[in-house]
Formats: sequence, structure tokens, C-alpha cells
Amino acid sequence: MGMGTALALLDAGFQVAGYDVDPLKLDRFADDGGIACASAAELAGHADRVITMVVNAEQVESVLFGEQGLAPALRGGLLLQSATVAPAWVRDLDARLADAGVELLDAPVSGGPVRAREGNLSVMLSGPAARRERAADVFDAAAANLFVMGDDIGQGSAMKLVNQLLAGVHIAVSGEAMAFALKSGLDAREVYRVITASAGNSWMFENRVPHILDNDYAPKSAVDIFIKDLGLVLDTARGSRFPLPMAAQAFTLFTMASSAGLGREDDAAVVKLWQRLSDITLPDGR
Amino acid sequence: MGMGTALALLDAGFQVAGYDVDPLKLDRFADDGGIACASAAELAGHADRVITMVVNAEQVESVLFGEQGLAPALRGGLLLQSATVAPAWVRDLDARLADAGVELLDAPVSGGPVRAREGNLSVMLSGPAARRERAADVFDAAAANLFVMGDDIGQGSAMKLVNQLLAGVHIAVSGEAMAFALKSGLDAREVYRVITASAGNSWMFENRVPHILDNDYAPKSAVDIFIKDLGLVLDTARGSRFPLPMAAQAFTLFTMASSAGLGREDDAAVVKLWQRLSDITLPDGR
Repeated sequence: MGMGTALALLDAGFQVAGYDVDPLKLDRFADDGGIACASAAELAGHADRVITMVVNAEQVESVLFGEQGLAPALRGGLLLQSATVAPAWVRDLDARLADAGVELLDAPVSGGPVRAREGNLSVMLSGPAARRERAADVFDAAAANLFVMGDDIGQGSAMKLVNQLLAGVHIAVSGEAMAFALKSGLDAREVYRVITASAGNSWMFENRVPHILDNDYAPKSAVDIFIKDLGLVLDTARGSRFPLPMAAQAFTLFTMASSAGLGREDDAAVVKLWQRLSDITLPDGR
Repeated sequence: MGMGTALALLDAGFQVAGYDVDPLKLDRFADDGGIACASAAELAGHADRVITMVVNAEQVESVLFGEQGLAPALRGGLLLQSATVAPAWVRDLDARLADAGVELLDAPVSGGPVRAREGNLSVMLSGPAARRERAADVFDAAAANLFVMGDDIGQGSAMKLVNQLLAGVHIAVSGEAMAFALKSGLDAREVYRVITASAGNSWMFENRVPHILDNDYAPKSAVDIFIKDLGLVLDTARGSRFPLPMAAQAFTLFTMASSAGLGREDDAAVVKLWQRLSDITLPDGR
């Protein structure tokens, strides 16, 4: 998604510098007209606004405060932080960046690589109005939906966690429902046709069940991503002693799937749990 | 939904006779041009095709085999059974009706009273082709979507249970997600706007969360309906030793809600569990 967004910004006429741990990606980016940097710190020599689009908080830490990290170099600049992280962590990050003279926007995204490349991400944004204004042209080019959740750092990430709670539960129950349908002797494609036209539908059911029908578990988004994201949801809720029984059950199913060796498969592979535990036959994709 | 469907069939030019335990409903039906019957058995004097649209299997039993019941009178006729019931139960019903000389179609519906009145129900139909043909004009008038699941009695009900599994889980997690959002300090209406445009959306989230936003728990579909429907799902799965952890968790939440005195409120009232268990404040609808 980072590469997609960088290319979308190039298309929109921005000068864009990029850094990635994978040098092949940087070569490709340079071929496409971007400026390839040899470290995160180098980015600050080309831009005073930087987007972090990485997997988790640990990677953001590494980019900002690791060896040749960005934070000390970006003094006076603005960081748009887009990884899915805990609200409490990003509030703490805001304080640490303030010490380094860097402004922060809490800007988690959703939409996946294809929509990133088209400049059509959804952004769940929070932060002071002046900082949001400072990044307005970037969001204009990179996002189709800009949801401003408030002035406080953490509100964007809180919104993202609510979305991930729903998304994770919907993926898990899509697998459970398809397994139950197969156990009941129903035709999987017919079930898909009925549910997508009925009150049982969800965005995730409509998007993920085709992977089951086509027997295609190449990871568009992997099982382990939802262990991370539902883990953040549950850790955040535990911090305020708040019960989330549906999210906890879905987390257990993703953990079972990862334990069974499916962690790097597409998250739709959670349906394989029922295959291992029963006599159902999943569609063979033919 | 029975009244709505009866009126839709009248609109379509059918002669329609009706029976309901509530005499006021029958008076209204007569005023609208229907034939009001004094018992279920009397229906067979006016029609050889009868729809049962009641709450559960017990009510179907009463209509068919109770005092002044329909089954003995309907010899040679066709029953379109539309209540949500267990596949095993409807297969058994088929055998019992065959003994009485009555044909059965397994025809659960979804859509609610408004779509019933418009003749726009969804029907998840199964049964032998000749029986389906015998009812084709009725479905033409009453349904917008006719999903033929197969020739075997029970397949329609199996499909309906898959839908109810998803619907029940989606309602429960909608309450959980909105409660978590409120705990996180987010604005409820803004969360609704974001989720309905994001990957966390479901048909049920979009339909039920407005009841929470408007503080309107007048039952369109009550908490206790999902205790019944998820109970059927879990009973059916238990019969074949099939694990449904997401459905089981949602069932527990609806049971908690009913235990807390919310059984006759709208199913969106499951969110009130978190209100009772924490310091969140639900929207006041103003």
C-alpha cells in the first residue's frame, strides 16, 4: 500500500521520495520517477511531510527511532502515521515526536494495495486542525474518503480498531457459515448467491468467500494480520476493562488457524479449521 | 408478514382466505377484501394451496394438527411452510403430511413486514419440481427473489439457518462494536457514517445501528427471535456434532440480553448489555 500511495502521489504531480527495506522495490520506484532514499533519515532531506505505511507499531518505531531513523532528521516536519496501531500507543508517540519537534497526524487507512495505487484509500484521520490543513493536498491525492474523527490524536486509530473488530468477526463467521452450509449439504456457490442478496450479507462475506469458492488462499490479507489487529482491539479493551466477547471468539479462531499452520494464507483460510475438524469438503475451485 | 403477504396476493388478483388467532386482524383482512376464516381447517374450504407464516415449529404444529387443524382438511392440497424451522423437523413434517395426503414445500422467507406487503419477499425454497411448479404463480406475486435450493425438503430451511447464523452474529457484533466505539470516545453517528462506507460494514450493521442512534428499541424484530433462530442453528449443528463458536457466542449475548429483561425489545438492544456492564452512555436519540 505504501508503494501504491507513493505512485498515486507521483501521478498527482508531487515530488515523492521513498524508502523501503527491500532495495528491489526502491529500484522500481526510481524507475517510475520517484526518489529512492538509502535510509528513513534521508527522506527528511527531500520532504517535510512523511507518511509511514508499514505493518505495525514496531516497524514505525524502527523507522522513526532506529538506526538512521527519521525522527531526529524531521524536526519542523509532519508525520502522517498510517499503520494500524493502538490509540494509547499513538498518543504516546505524539508526545515523543513533540519532544523531537515533529508534528503528528493519526491517519490509519483502509482499502488495500489496488485502491492505494488509484489514490482511493479511506483515511480515518485525527489531529489538530492546523496539522490536518498542512496535509490536505496529500490526502486529496491519496484518498477517496477522508473521515475526520476529531482533533485528538488517537481518535483515528480508535475508529480503525472499531472497523477491524467488525471486519475480523465478519471474516471468521463467513468461514463458519460456509462450513455449516457445506455440512448441511448446500451448494457453496448457491449459498454465496443467496447470502449476498440477503440480510446475512457483509462486505467481508462478499469479498472473502470467493477465495473459498475458488480454492485460492494466496494471501491478499493474511490470517496473521488479523491476529495482530484483533490483538490490538483486545489489548485496548483490556486496558479499560471492557468486554468484547465476539472479538475474543474471532481472535481464538484466527489463533487456531495460525496454530494449524495457516498464518500466512489468506484470512479466508479460517474456513479450513472446520475442514480439519469434520468431514466437510471445501470447494476445489474447478 | 402473513398479513402483508395475504394483501400482496389480493393485490395480484388472487382470491385469498386467511386465518389468524387475533380476530381484529381477521376483521381488517375482511375489510381489505379477504375471506376471514374462523379456524385453520376452514381455509381448506376456500383454497388447495396454503401458506403458514408463523413464528416457529410449535405454531405450525398447532395450525396443522391442533384443534380444528388444517392438515386433515387439506387432503390433496399443497402447504407452503414459511416459518424458520430446523431442517430435520421439516423433513419429518413432510413424512407426516404425506400420510395425510398433503404435499409440502419447504419455503422459509426473509424480508420483514414491509417487503411482504410489497410482494417483495426473499424465499429460500426446496421441494420436488412438480410441487414448486404448482406454487409458481404464488411466488411470482409474493416474492422478489425466489432462491431454489434443491429438490429435497430441508434444503430451504438449511439455507435459512445459514442466513440466520450470519444475521445473528452480525447484530451481536454491531452492538459490541458500537459499545467499544462509545467507550473509545468516538461520536456514534460519525462511526456509523465511516463503517457503512468501509470494509467493516454488514447489512445488519447498516439496518440495526440506526435504532441505537435514534434510541428506538421498539421491536421490528425482537431479541427473543434470535434466541429462537440461533437456538435452531445450534441445535441443528449439535445434532451432527458440528462446532459453531461464533454463533454460540452470539447466542450467549442474546441470552444475556433476554435475561436482563430485554427479550421483547428490538434485537439492537443487545448493545444495552455493555451499558449495564460499563460507564458508556448510549445515544439519547435527540
